[in-house]
Amino acid sequence: MKFRRSERLIDMTHYLLERPKELVSLTFFSERYGSAKSSISEDLAIIKETFEKQGIGTLQTVPGAAGGVKYISKASTKEAKEFIGELCELIASADRLLPGGYLYLTDLLGTPQIMNKVGKLLASAFADTDIDVIMTVATKGIPIAHAISEHLNVPFVIVRGDSKVTEGSTVSINYVSGSTKRIQTMVLSKRSLNEGAKVLIVDDFMKAGGTITGMMNLLEEFKAFVAGIAVLVESEDAQERLVDDYVSLVKLMDVDMKEKRIKVVEGNYFT
Amino acid sequence: MKFRRSERLIDMTHYLLERPKELVSLTFFSERYGSAKSSISEDLAIIKETFEKQGIGTLQTVPGAAGGVKYISKASTKEAKEFIGELCELIASADRLLPGGYLYLTDLLGTPQIMNKVGKLLASAFADTDIDVIMTVATKGIPIAHAISEHLNVPFVIVRGDSKVTEGSTVSINYVSGSTKRIQTMVLSKRSLNEGAKVLIVDDFMKAGGTITGMMNLLEEFKAFVAGIAVLVESEDAQERLVDDYVSLVKLMDVDMKEKRIKVVEGNYFT
Repeated sequence: MKFRRSERLIDMTHYLLERPKELVSLTFFSERYGSAKSSISEDLAIIKETFEKQGIGTLQTVPGAAGGVKYISKASTKEAKEFIGELCELIASADRLLPGGYLYLTDLLGTPQIMNKVGKLLASAFADTDIDVIMTVATKGIPIAHAISEHLNVPFVIVRGDSKVTEGSTVSINYVSGSTKRIQTMVLSKRSLNEGAKVLIVDDFMKAGGTITGMMNLLEEFKAFVAGIAVLVESEDAQERLVDDYVSLVKLMDVDMKEKRIKVVEGNYFT
Repeated sequence: MKFRRSERLIDMTHYLLERPKELVSLTFFSERYGSAKSSISEDLAIIKETFEKQGIGTLQTVPGAAGGVKYISKASTKEAKEFIGELCELIASADRLLPGGYLYLTDLLGTPQIMNKVGKLLASAFADTDIDVIMTVATKGIPIAHAISEHLNVPFVIVRGDSKVTEGSTVSINYVSGSTKRIQTMVLSKRSLNEGAKVLIVDDFMKAGGTITGMMNLLEEFKAFVAGIAVLVESEDAQERLVDDYVSLVKLMDVDMKEKRIKVVEGNYFT
């Protein structure tokens, strides 16, 4: 089966978008399309140029016999600015306010196009970091971890509050919730994390950072390392922050329960 | 900014892949690229042909003034056969066996490329069904629901076993687990589902079907409708099945704890 350039460009775009960070050899494409490597090289140059021009991401070329090309999903500053702006508006809506100053975010976490952008932005922030696996805590962190994992093309593991038979043997720790000061438990399946793994910790909402500190302690039990911390929303409200080095998309500045007003601004994503 | 055909094809491919089932007008593309509608029509014909040839999906054309084009993510029979075959092999590995005849599946649920295929296949099974929202139960159903939601481009909602302040007011029901006969609770945020919504119910594992029956009962409380049921793994083992009409990718036939043997076959996906 012979492929014209236009067909190759469409199929290569799809193939690369489905496999971020995966090295694909020119030989593979050359055989897939029955085309000379020189034509494939030209195709890839066009794709790289268009990906960069349109803010889709970029292609990295790895030279040599074992070389090839890798698609890196990377949000442009323009795309990030626009999306974080939209997100602030979405979150600042008064009907999200719940008793205790909490926010209803579940609808956003269940909207695939929003999660895809969240995943792309947070993956972009860690595009140059060496990450083996993403870790989050059930339930609301899962869609965010899943979305980032698609853009970094690494697996994600889910920490739970209770032990389930379907997890096999587990490691559990106790930790103190930063806001409520209550003692809680975190459980992770033993086989889900290798010793020495470099882990990106992810959550939907960070107040004092107790849950994230808990995940950091859990990593120690596995002799694994923190490669980074990413949250969707951080709350300014925290009396004492347990976690310093993190990336957030938006920041909750001020919640006025009485006036039903929420102030939401950009997180530290650009700083 | 002027775009050449090659650039248009790459950018349109990306644009459409990110928005399954969304109607995009020719005018939009024509303005995006500063190109005549006749050129855009030619581009779309090439994309449609390549998508179909390569098993990516298809484009549906909606004629008229309010018309345009829609990308439908659809797995070819070949892709589905191959992937379900791989899945059977992956799941049949003896070290997945857990006490009580349960299977460890968590690693698969956390691998984005596997989930993407699972999502594509299950979305294909419901490509012609009218679905407003996907519903699953925490924790392990979430990545599957998320993956399907990306290919159908509809939101997903998460039923929980306990009520959380971050969910706002909730509706809860009690149900009897089909396998263990224990009474359990299911909780769903009130604002997450509209009356009359057509809902695709999703779970990772179905034995007798108690959890899925629970979700069906919960839908009644919301005056919403079951549009379909999709599971990753069904177990043959069930004494009496509470649910009849569902789609499964793989079927667990026989678990021999003593010999550490698992038999896994194709589910009812093709029937």
